[in-house]
Amino acid sequence: MPSTANVGQQESPRPLEPVALLAARNERESIQIALRPKVSWSTNSGIAGAVQIQSTDLCSSTGDRLVVGKSVTLRRVVSILGVPDALVPLDAPVSQINLFPGETSAIWVSVTVPYDQPPGQYEGQIIVTAMKPDAGSAMSCLSRDEKHQLYKELKSCLDVVEPLDDKPLEEAVNRAKYATSSLKNILLLPTFVECRDDHTSSDAMDEDNIINPSISIKLSVTVWDFTLPLTPSLPAVFGVSETVIEDRFCLQHGSQSWYDALDRHFEWLLQYRISPFFCRWGERMRVLAYTCPWPADHPKADNYYSDPRLAAYAVPYLPIQTCTDTAKDSLRREVEVLKSKSHWKKAYFYLWDEPVNLEQYDTIRNMSSEIRAYAPDARVLTTYYCGPTGAELSSSTFEAFVKVPGILRPHTQIFCTSEWVLGSREDMVKDIVDELQPENGEEWWTYVCLGPTDPHPNWHLGMRGTQHRAVMWRVWKEGGTGFLYWGANCYEKATVPSAEIKFRRGLPPGDGVLFYPGEVFSSSNEPVASVRLERILSGLQDIEYLKLYSSKYGKEEALSLMERRGVYLGPERYTLDHGPIDLMRADIYQACNFGTGIPFA
Amino acid sequence: MPSTANVGQQESPRPLEPVALLAARNERESIQIALRPKVSWSTNSGIAGAVQIQSTDLCSSTGDRLVVGKSVTLRRVVSILGVPDALVPLDAPVSQINLFPGETSAIWVSVTVPYDQPPGQYEGQIIVTAMKPDAGSAMSCLSRDEKHQLYKELKSCLDVVEPLDDKPLEEAVNRAKYATSSLKNILLLPTFVECRDDHTSSDAMDEDNIINPSISIKLSVTVWDFTLPLTPSLPAVFGVSETVIEDRFCLQHGSQSWYDALDRHFEWLLQYRISPFFCRWGERMRVLAYTCPWPADHPKADNYYSDPRLAAYAVPYLPIQTCTDTAKDSLRREVEVLKSKSHWKKAYFYLWDEPVNLEQYDTIRNMSSEIRAYAPDARVLTTYYCGPTGAELSSSTFEAFVKVPGILRPHTQIFCTSEWVLGSREDMVKDIVDELQPENGEEWWTYVCLGPTDPHPNWHLGMRGTQHRAVMWRVWKEGGTGFLYWGANCYEKATVPSAEIKFRRGLPPGDGVLFYPGEVFSSSNEPVASVRLERILSGLQDIEYLKLYSSKYGKEEALSLMERRGVYLGPERYTLDHGPIDLMRADIYQACNFGTGIPFA
Repeated sequence: MPSTANVGQQESPRPLEPVALLAARNERESIQIALRPKVSWSTNSGIAGAVQIQSTDLCSSTGDRLVVGKSVTLRRVVSILGVPDALVPLDAPVSQINLFPGETSAIWVSVTVPYDQPPGQYEGQIIVTAMKPDAGSAMSCLSRDEKHQLYKELKSCLDVVEPLDDKPLEEAVNRAKYATSSLKNILLLPTFVECRDDHTSSDAMDEDNIINPSISIKLSVTVWDFTLPLTPSLPAVFGVSETVIEDRFCLQHGSQSWYDALDRHFEWLLQYRISPFFCRWGERMRVLAYTCPWPADHPKADNYYSDPRLAAYAVPYLPIQTCTDTAKDSLRREVEVLKSKSHWKKAYFYLWDEPVNLEQYDTIRNMSSEIRAYAPDARVLTTYYCGPTGAELSSSTFEAFVKVPGILRPHTQIFCTSEWVLGSREDMVKDIVDELQPENGEEWWTYVCLGPTDPHPNWHLGMRGTQHRAVMWRVWKEGGTGFLYWGANCYEKATVPSAEIKFRRGLPPGDGVLFYPGEVFSSSNEPVASVRLERILSGLQDIEYLKLYSSKYGKEEALSLMERRGVYLGPERYTLDHGPIDLMRADIYQACNFGTGIPFA
Repeated sequence: MPSTANVGQQESPRPLEPVALLAARNERESIQIALRPKVSWSTNSGIAGAVQIQSTDLCSSTGDRLVVGKSVTLRRVVSILGVPDALVPLDAPVSQINLFPGETSAIWVSVTVPYDQPPGQYEGQIIVTAMKPDAGSAMSCLSRDEKHQLYKELKSCLDVVEPLDDKPLEEAVNRAKYATSSLKNILLLPTFVECRDDHTSSDAMDEDNIINPSISIKLSVTVWDFTLPLTPSLPAVFGVSETVIEDRFCLQHGSQSWYDALDRHFEWLLQYRISPFFCRWGERMRVLAYTCPWPADHPKADNYYSDPRLAAYAVPYLPIQTCTDTAKDSLRREVEVLKSKSHWKKAYFYLWDEPVNLEQYDTIRNMSSEIRAYAPDARVLTTYYCGPTGAELSSSTFEAFVKVPGILRPHTQIFCTSEWVLGSREDMVKDIVDELQPENGEEWWTYVCLGPTDPHPNWHLGMRGTQHRAVMWRVWKEGGTGFLYWGANCYEKATVPSAEIKFRRGLPPGDGVLFYPGEVFSSSNEPVASVRLERILSGLQDIEYLKLYSSKYGKEEALSLMERRGVYLGPERYTLDHGPIDLMRADIYQACNFGTGIPFA
């Protein structure tokens, strides 16, 4: 099943088909395998049976490989609030899961093509094998008592014969005889019953496995001669709450393990073509946003800022927490270090979230003035969904909203507006953009949060898969040059890493939560992605495809392709099925693949 | 949580409270324990952790007991089509289940009070203990290879030293030394790593268990001095498809294992105060219904017919399948044997399901005439929901429906009508009953099947728990003297016992399916009850309570109690919560408990 399907426990079975994927280099493509037991074969109460899932490497005819465990990964789709969402990693190349009677389980298979993978046709398979009830993951269980008993008996057997050197020969032999008969009894223990019969050779065991019923899913990936740019074309900046991390993992702000945790989150999110910023909320909607926890002159800072996968970074406006001169000094020093670097063009300052009145506008102006005193080309990002109250226009009108750039200029360069304001009126994009001065470096970015809601594209739990993916189609069509999301880990406070995930009250489920702590699902501390996060990645990859196509045929033609295939026509008109997405991607491949000439099957 | 709660995977946690139940002798009362992990503690991917569930006996101060495993049972509530429904038995007194992150699991606890249990206050507890991740059901796993390796090494160690007698002493000692060092190496295997440290004593292990976090639920049951009659006051006759049993369990009709399977089903259903009949459907709506698979003169037949828990039994009209004289003879013989027995008053003939035209009415008349020629006091049951087409009245009118007794008399004694016909018009009951001649043994029974539907009482999956239980409240209030249900095991055909359960197309989920084959959930062949079947039992038990109360205070007063407590006022007005049910039962207990004088806590 495609990656945009929400495969619930009640999903109906359908015929098994070979999987053929198209992928660029530096791209991830995913599909799902839905498993539903026709019969139960486990003797274990409540479980239909266990299956082993095994993936091979994907190999090309020239011997190149997409290696399982690295480029090919398998994850189990786990429901959150009854909706398939969390992707819990399975061991590679072989792992085992239980199937439940009358329940469909889904496995999320991802192929992540390395940046330098040779183009070509890669073939492999995923084999699902029903495990014999008695084999139990090829493990046989020994009760703790049984094992301790065995150990004790072997130990006492040893005690009898050791040391033999200091004993007279006769006694030594007698002791050896006694040990021998103990040993004989040990081998007659029920523990070894299965070892005593004819089936002791490992050949016989292999034969057992061969007669296990198993199905094989053919997986074929066409890697084509296009490489998604390491640096995403569209900066997608996503907030990660430092407070949530500190609380849940019990980390002291600024301790070594705090830095480690931030490091891990930063690194992990980069694979999703996302440019993370850490954030802490102040009074009202003040926000301290920073991509790098280290000062700009710290050797580690450059690792963060220079990472080619980072498309934009937030520079902390430090005085937000302490308003002393030292803090002001440190802001100046920070800016002075950064503005000399080549990555300075990726920098932005995110100072206030959704200002709603002139007092808040004034605060932004003051902070912005200070920043731009140190670096006149600094970019300030401001999010908003309405005009300010207290101005001449009623704040809730579209006119007041559209006039915000006039009020915030030159104190904001990135005008970041909520998609919710547009409703289904795509035509109003023109009104927004017309107010901007791109010649002076002004940009239009957008964001989604608790709005817009159904049927418009957003990332709430329970929305359709294509609705999740369509957020980025919308951004590309509307022409925004960046995107902001307020929070990727903003679930309710907890103080135990493995505590149950609760969404925040008052927010739609899934809003502000795109991944989960690994500890909730296993002993791993690696974050667990949501299917929504994977669909965000897919959307960001779609943007690179569309950009490639536009670069050759123009944006009008790319928009027309998107429409012709029925992928995305507007916030209320986009495909509900996966088919058109693959067709559009194949069209782009056909039109742009001048490299290897590999035909796409 | 009460037995009428549908505890889904998303059920919110709520405070733990002691459980106090009131139960008569020969009654079953059930509650549910909802478990939701606050944290994950398993190292096993996707599982929050394992808990051990242990129940004690319930003991009275005079030393009487309700024994766990017999009178106290625990079952896991398993979802069917996403709705909590199947009750899969857990081992007693201790079992173990896995909890999943963000998912609520429910345990169904039933106390079944034996017929001869001394009244009194019984106390016990259910203890839920989180299992240590490494303990894994107190089992440690050994891979098959590991175990075979261990066996092989011990065996070769033994081969070296056996026999020693025929060896010179020196060689014997050398061999013993060699074996000793092998043995030493074996004890250093990773398998025994946990045995080598300090924690080898079983005391230490017990201590480990003690520090496991555990919660205890106090369970107190007041058994009062009222015994539900062994023979249910209201005959509730339920169909069991012999075809479904034959297909799924691959049984030859009439073979020994076929008889065994029917036996098991008969016996198992009796515990639910249900009088089963096996059935096979003929052309159109002809039905062969029989409670006992043996001929009346077979020694086994009396075991079936004389069982005091059976309130009514179907006598097969044999010629339904073969229309020869032999078959006719066998009907006569069957009736002649049965009519001489004291249990004959429980007999009925169910010949045709829902006749809709005069031709079908004629068939019923012919069969009925034949039966009554052999036994003039035989009772024929006919189900219907409309008048016949082809008669003077339009068949779909209420008038035509109400006049059916006039057309079928004297060929039917039990007029069994669909509750669906009444809609919310309880007052129409009078019109139906007025047409009957109770002085000539005519009775009014009812049935539900695919209708009525929401919000009226029925047993479909996804309805409220009180809606399930209300079916019997309705019967009692309306005054019918019996009840029929068409099928308890009528899921889709399958030919493997453990095959997935599929509801029949075109029927509301759960309609015709009140229990599941045990093989779907474990290796047991004992049927798995649905929560709906348990609620049917509760409803049938409520009828006995109401009958007891009526016998002392009159039916009017009983109806008024039911209304006062808000339990049941009509098919669209019954309690949605459990509270009123317990209050009404306590009222009846207070008003009727003249025996022991035990106050109900």
